[in-house]
Amino acid sequence: MKRILILNGPNLNLLGRREPEIYGHQSFEDFFEELQEEYPQVSLQYFQSNHEGELIDKLQEVGFSYYGIVFNPAGYTHTSVALCDTVKAISTAVVEVHISNIHERESFRHHSYIAAHAATSIIGKGLNGYRMGIDFLLSTKV
Amino acid sequence: MKRILILNGPNLNLLGRREPEIYGHQSFEDFFEELQEEYPQVSLQYFQSNHEGELIDKLQEVGFSYYGIVFNPAGYTHTSVALCDTVKAISTAVVEVHISNIHERESFRHHSYIAAHAATSIIGKGLNGYRMGIDFLLSTKV
Amino acid sequence: MKRILILNGPNLNLLGRREPEIYGHQSFEDFFEELQEEYPQVSLQYFQSNHEGELIDKLQEVGFSYYGIVFNPAGYTHTSVALCDTVKAISTAVVEVHISNIHERESFRHHSYIAAHAATSIIGKGLNGYRMGIDFLLSTKV
Amino acid sequence: MKRILILNGPNLNLLGRREPEIYGHQSFEDFFEELQEEYPQVSLQYFQSNHEGELIDKLQEVGFSYYGIVFNPAGYTHTSVALCDTVKAISTAVVEVHISNIHERESFRHHSYIAAHAATSIIGKGLNGYRMGIDFLLSTKV
Amino acid sequence: MKRILILNGPNLNLLGRREPEIYGHQSFEDFFEELQEEYPQVSLQYFQSNHEGELIDKLQEVGFSYYGIVFNPAGYTHTSVALCDTVKAISTAVVEVHISNIHERESFRHHSYIAAHAATSIIGKGLNGYRMGIDFLLSTKV
Amino acid sequence: MKRILILNGPNLNLLGRREPEIYGHQSFEDFFEELQEEYPQVSLQYFQSNHEGELIDKLQEVGFSYYGIVFNPAGYTHTSVALCDTVKAISTAVVEVHISNIHERESFRHHSYIAAHAATSIIGKGLNGYRMGIDFLLSTKV
Amino acid sequence: MKRILILNGPNLNLLGRREPEIYGHQSFEDFFEELQEEYPQVSLQYFQSNHEGELIDKLQEVGFSYYGIVFNPAGYTHTSVALCDTVKAISTAVVEVHISNIHERESFRHHSYIAAHAATSIIGKGLNGYRMGIDFLLSTKV
Amino acid sequence: MKRILILNGPNLNLLGRREPEIYGHQSFEDFFEELQEEYPQVSLQYFQSNHEGELIDKLQEVGFSYYGIVFNPAGYTHTSVALCDTVKAISTAVVEVHISNIHERESFRHHSYIAAHAATSIIGKGLNGYRMGIDFLLSTKV
Amino acid sequence: MKRILILNGPNLNLLGRREPEIYGHQSFEDFFEELQEEYPQVSLQYFQSNHEGELIDKLQEVGFSYYGIVFNPAGYTHTSVALCDTVKAISTAVVEVHISNIHERESFRHHSYIAAHAATSIIGKGLNGYRMGIDFLLSTKV
Amino acid sequence: MKRILILNGPNLNLLGRREPEIYGHQSFEDFFEELQEEYPQVSLQYFQSNHEGELIDKLQEVGFSYYGIVFNPAGYTHTSVALCDTVKAISTAVVEVHISNIHERESFRHHSYIAAHAATSIIGKGLNGYRMGIDFLLSTKV
Amino acid sequence: MKRILILNGPNLNLLGRREPEIYGHQSFEDFFEELQEEYPQVSLQYFQSNHEGELIDKLQEVGFSYYGIVFNPAGYTHTSVALCDTVKAISTAVVEVHISNIHERESFRHHSYIAAHAATSIIGKGLNGYRMGIDFLLSTKV
Amino acid sequence: MKRILILNGPNLNLLGRREPEIYGHQSFEDFFEELQEEYPQVSLQYFQSNHEGELIDKLQEVGFSYYGIVFNPAGYTHTSVALCDTVKAISTAVVEVHISNIHERESFRHHSYIAAHAATSIIGKGLNGYRMGIDFLLSTKV
Repeated sequence: MKRILILNGPNLNLLGRREPEIYGHQSFEDFFEELQEEYPQVSLQYFQSNHEGELIDKLQEVGFSYYGIVFNPAGYTHTSVALCDTVKAISTAVVEVHISNIHERESFRHHSYIAAHAATSIIGKGLNGYRMGIDFLLSTKV
Repeated sequence: MKRILILNGPNLNLLGRREPEIYGHQSFEDFFEELQEEYPQVSLQYFQSNHEGELIDKLQEVGFSYYGIVFNPAGYTHTSVALCDTVKAISTAVVEVHISNIHERESFRHHSYIAAHAATSIIGKGLNGYRMGIDFLLSTKV
Repeated sequence: MKRILILNGPNLNLLGRREPEIYGHQSFEDFFEELQEEYPQVSLQYFQSNHEGELIDKLQEVGFSYYGIVFNPAGYTHTSVALCDTVKAISTAVVEVHISNIHERESFRHHSYIAAHAATSIIGKGLNGYRMGIDFLLSTKV
Repeated sequence: MKRILILNGPNLNLLGRREPEIYGHQSFEDFFEELQEEYPQVSLQYFQSNHEGELIDKLQEVGFSYYGIVFNPAGYTHTSVALCDTVKAISTAVVEVHISNIHERESFRHHSYIAAHAATSIIGKGLNGYRMGIDFLLSTKV
Repeated sequence: MKRILILNGPNLNLLGRREPEIYGHQSFEDFFEELQEEYPQVSLQYFQSNHEGELIDKLQEVGFSYYGIVFNPAGYTHTSVALCDTVKAISTAVVEVHISNIHERESFRHHSYIAAHAATSIIGKGLNGYRMGIDFLLSTKV
Repeated sequence: MKRILILNGPNLNLLGRREPEIYGHQSFEDFFEELQEEYPQVSLQYFQSNHEGELIDKLQEVGFSYYGIVFNPAGYTHTSVALCDTVKAISTAVVEVHISNIHERESFRHHSYIAAHAATSIIGKGLNGYRMGIDFLLSTKV
Repeated sequence: MKRILILNGPNLNLLGRREPEIYGHQSFEDFFEELQEEYPQVSLQYFQSNHEGELIDKLQEVGFSYYGIVFNPAGYTHTSVALCDTVKAISTAVVEVHISNIHERESFRHHSYIAAHAATSIIGKGLNGYRMGIDFLLSTKV
Repeated sequence: MKRILILNGPNLNLLGRREPEIYGHQSFEDFFEELQEEYPQVSLQYFQSNHEGELIDKLQEVGFSYYGIVFNPAGYTHTSVALCDTVKAISTAVVEVHISNIHERESFRHHSYIAAHAATSIIGKGLNGYRMGIDFLLSTKV
Repeated sequence: MKRILILNGPNLNLLGRREPEIYGHQSFEDFFEELQEEYPQVSLQYFQSNHEGELIDKLQEVGFSYYGIVFNPAGYTHTSVALCDTVKAISTAVVEVHISNIHERESFRHHSYIAAHAATSIIGKGLNGYRMGIDFLLSTKV
Repeated sequence: MKRILILNGPNLNLLGRREPEIYGHQSFEDFFEELQEEYPQVSLQYFQSNHEGELIDKLQEVGFSYYGIVFNPAGYTHTSVALCDTVKAISTAVVEVHISNIHERESFRHHSYIAAHAATSIIGKGLNGYRMGIDFLLSTKV
Repeated sequence: MKRILILNGPNLNLLGRREPEIYGHQSFEDFFEELQEEYPQVSLQYFQSNHEGELIDKLQEVGFSYYGIVFNPAGYTHTSVALCDTVKAISTAVVEVHISNIHERESFRHHSYIAAHAATSIIGKGLNGYRMGIDFLLSTKV
Repeated sequence: MKRILILNGPNLNLLGRREPEIYGHQSFEDFFEELQEEYPQVSLQYFQSNHEGELIDKLQEVGFSYYGIVFNPAGYTHTSVALCDTVKAISTAVVEVHISNIHERESFRHHSYIAAHAATSIIGKGLNGYRMGIDFLLSTKV
């Protein structure tokens, strides 16, 4: 069975807890369970960390054996040359996902160090972007 | 049958003619025929123009009725606010495709006016990027 | 009878069709008919194109004989040195109009290549800006 | 009777005195008298100050009751966020006027903090720009 | 009794008058009376000016004898090196206050010439920021 | 009893050890004990880490229940969008503190990603800045 | 007989019509006839367009068979990545010509996207630059 | 008798009062009396203001009749286009003086709007710079 | 025996595994064993981490007692002010090493936050740079 | 007989000696002899210097009497305002030549101070660029 | 007798020879003889070089013994850190002179590396600037 | 015997003469004699010039035969592309040395054109940096 990692960067663990009247009460863990049910043909894994280094560790750990990675680097998108190097170094395809449209926020969020080496970038489609990322990995020959 | 437009910007009509010892002798028209055979379940259309205005016209023409658009804006990627506005205005999903990795070329090719409003961006995967774009449109709920 | 051209740039032909719940169902053609009724003393013309070159052609065509031009260059405002040169070259006065306040949108929309050679610039007054442009031309000695 | 204020920023009081062989011997006060005669249907007022604060005071004083303001901010055009805020805050329409073409002078004169909130901007039409400003206010529904 | 000056820069005198449906009908003078009642143990003074020079004069006047200054420089925050020098020169502690979050507005409002020499900066807390400024001065040993 | 966290970023654990002839022999731990004695009415906590991720973890851990946080992000002040997002996401008020005046050091230290979402910023007051931060939290209604 | 194309970009068709007291009454068509007489040994062609796309089309059309192209891209010089790509792609040598010295005009005219792939660039020699371009093509082995 | 104005900008009135252990207890007024004694052959005047507008007023007042002006614009040096225009407009020679070396301070102090139109600029010579300014005016034919 | 730490930043643990046809099959651990044999007179230690914080921890741990540190900060070179501060704070000499020539790669790799406080910087000498770093430490009086 | 100077800037004297496996063993002196044989109708001179000043001296020496100059300024192309001034001052036509395509190298090599005043610029044509330069001078009326 | 050196940088030796219809037929040597006659009380020396190094040599040679130096660095003004260092290092006062107003020419001429360490800078006064420089040195106590 | 050249750029010949109370009375020549005594096993040469061209000449002269070069380019570090090219072209290893920490001085001294091609860069170690450079060359295999 194909293994795909959903990898979330800093502060995404606050979903469901932060301003729930706006973002809803659903945590990412709950959403992830939905994803697992929607994709029974895939072995979906989930990992979140606020640590740049742990994200690099995890990418290296699965990056030579998994089928694909759906990665939301959150705040590290714009500042991490180290993550840029990891995504370039591993052989597993990485789909970059951002929940909101980073191009419509502050200018320091417009540039992504990850995009140059991602298989594709899905921006501003809300949580559905994760589904689109999985679909992309399953349907295309990267 | 779902209609998908393959839309190519300036100079992509030179494929097969320009430095064939490097890029091969296959024209994009020939490649397009291959695509049509690979995707019999889709009504694939092809349009190429060197004119910014004709690309806008075509996006507007199909952009409220087609299922999806795979768009390689070529040189207009980096300079056209008008195309940026069109992609934002239409309701059909647009997948941005670049054959080469624009992030590894001259710095004036690093920025895309299209990316902020594209469903996804596929960069540096060669002609296979067009297949990935079609697969993405067919497999995801944009 | 004084001839005044209303000249619209790219994507303005989508008015009434694009997000009608926000922008309303009135097309620019309908609005133009209203204008003609409001200004019976003027021979009002209307031309829209998504093509930078056709906008230049039209400016050159009327730019030595018409009484005035009300010009919304839309996306070309920020990128076209060629249109800048045309507006400078012709003898007919050009009023630049933008429906929304370009200074309150993305930073790449803050600069206008047209403003330096326009008779005046009317920004962010909605469709009424076209009326203001006609009034300006009729009331002032440019 | 409609009241319109002609408001002049720093150094415009030197007109007629500074390099008269170039700019002529006519002072702005003399020119203002001409304007008053040309527009008998308007109550034209005139105020000039070299003080940024006095210009703000005056704009606030008339900015909720006058019909319009024709404002040449001169050197403060390019440096005053405070004046930018005042023009935005008041309800009377402000027409920005510059005698010379600021886009053809030093680069620090190319940007205007006033333009974003002015009803329109008239640049490089000489003293006639003041007439155009009055005409614009009288003829348009801002 | 400790003397504290509330010092307001340009356009803050329009509070209660400018867009009252948004900002309310309360003027800053009214709010200041509330403050005086809330802090009976302090001799609170209030001064507002649209003139950069008068703000400097006032800072110099009280800046060697008062207990503290709560200063909202408004539009001069981003443009005044002269005020920067004054705040640095005087010995009384200055708390910088901005009603709105200047970091979420236009980019020319992101930089403050005052912050480097203020005792602290309170940004985006509405009128309550003035209270916080007084509290800060009363509670801390600057 | 109100809980307040003193949170220190990278290299602040070297205090007392690094150039003691300049910075003194007192470690931050010793200084923290002084603080605890000075504020018996508060439950003061202390946490230091050189890890960006651990600082985010800690902010999230206490950021919905503590009364306040006094945070010196040190070197991460200028580079961490992730910490910027955390400070924005949590509901506990954060006071940003810098021992030295970052505006008087290298230009890459002039910008703070934290300031836009901090309750206030206290810069260049030495270790006393921590006291001022606690005082601020205790005395003001953030 | 060697074929050489004289290719003119936007607004160059206004020669002879625009400010004739300065630029003279000779149109480019008239000048082109002179050129044909001066170079009887060459098959000289002339094409002008205000359309970026038509210039690309024409370059592609003759760019693999003609002996040389003398190209004045006018306003597109500074904004067209698409033309840059075309000049690079074709095999016929292109001489870039500008009538005026673009380095002595506005700063946005200082950079040329064409120069990097032109055989040579002739700037600021008036109409004689076209002769120099033809001479260059005839005399050198590009 | 030749009249020379010593004109001082914002905060220079604090001399002798601000950090006297560093700058000494002598006020500028005292220093000015010394200057008057040193130059009995000149009618020396002194004017200081914290107001940009008053500095402009004064420059205009004496700028067509005095023999020379020694001007320390202080904080307005780096921000005032209006003063730049005044210095250019008047006919009296202006010597720009800065007590400290502005090139060795913060980068926003490196540029002077006054220098382009001053007769000369004397930087970083302490109070002696005023003497040098007077000497320069007396000894040279500007 | 002198202790020298070889400290490697993110992704350098992939050596021998990433594109082995290019970089070879030798891991850094294997190379480190070679180094130990080459320098029997030194107690060589090796530490690698993908975590910015762990690199800081390690530098602090050995930075007051070891003889020297050979440090390849990899991706953190260009983004870490925190590491910059650590290298400055410790007393042990640090030699910065980069395997490839960072000046010949993307522009965001041209600047090093470490260089200003390193004893020396060795760039683009491949793995031999580590030897050069050890030699430098052993041969020079830093 | 027409005199033409071939003028070479710094490091071009290393040709034939530097990386001969790439650049070949032919020195520029040898190549120059070939040129002399190819152009018997011209008095060709050759001068090379690593000194900016000697290049200026030589340009001044021949720049009012020679027929033309083919000038490769090498590293001084991008840094020398002094050479820019010389090329502008002399009356002999100067053809700028660069062996490699400076637009495809580091960004600091993209700008040429010489181009604005050269008769033409030939870039990236290898040693043949010198022939093209001579041909250009012989065939055109500069 | 006081010794003063007039030191001229590159291309100033062309005076009288370059565009004599504009600049006149007088060489700088002739003008220097006039100066010597005008200042019989001074031992005036003259040195000109196109070589940056020779200018440095000369400044060092006289810079510890002469009374003053009047220096026009011409094109090196804007590019020479080395000359900046020399002017700072020597003890003789240096007056910077520019014949034309460098602030009104190309933007790369606006910055002077010399100004920060010159006794004063005289700009745009024609050849008279040299007289003003001598007068300044003779009349002031630098 | 290995030959190593100590090469010094502009103004370094002033050592011992310039501000001796700060830099001491020792000239570089004296220091060089010390170095020769310290390294009897090496044939140490010394050359200093204020001329960019002479430094290039010398680098070329010894750059294919000497064992190493210790080079302090002084002011040319930041401005000389020509020296950058020479260091790249020669085969002898070059160690870049700066006596002071260029990263802690003006921002125009932060960038080095030499560093990209130097074997290593030693910054801010005083005269000892020269020793470190020699040690580096003797101890490492560049």
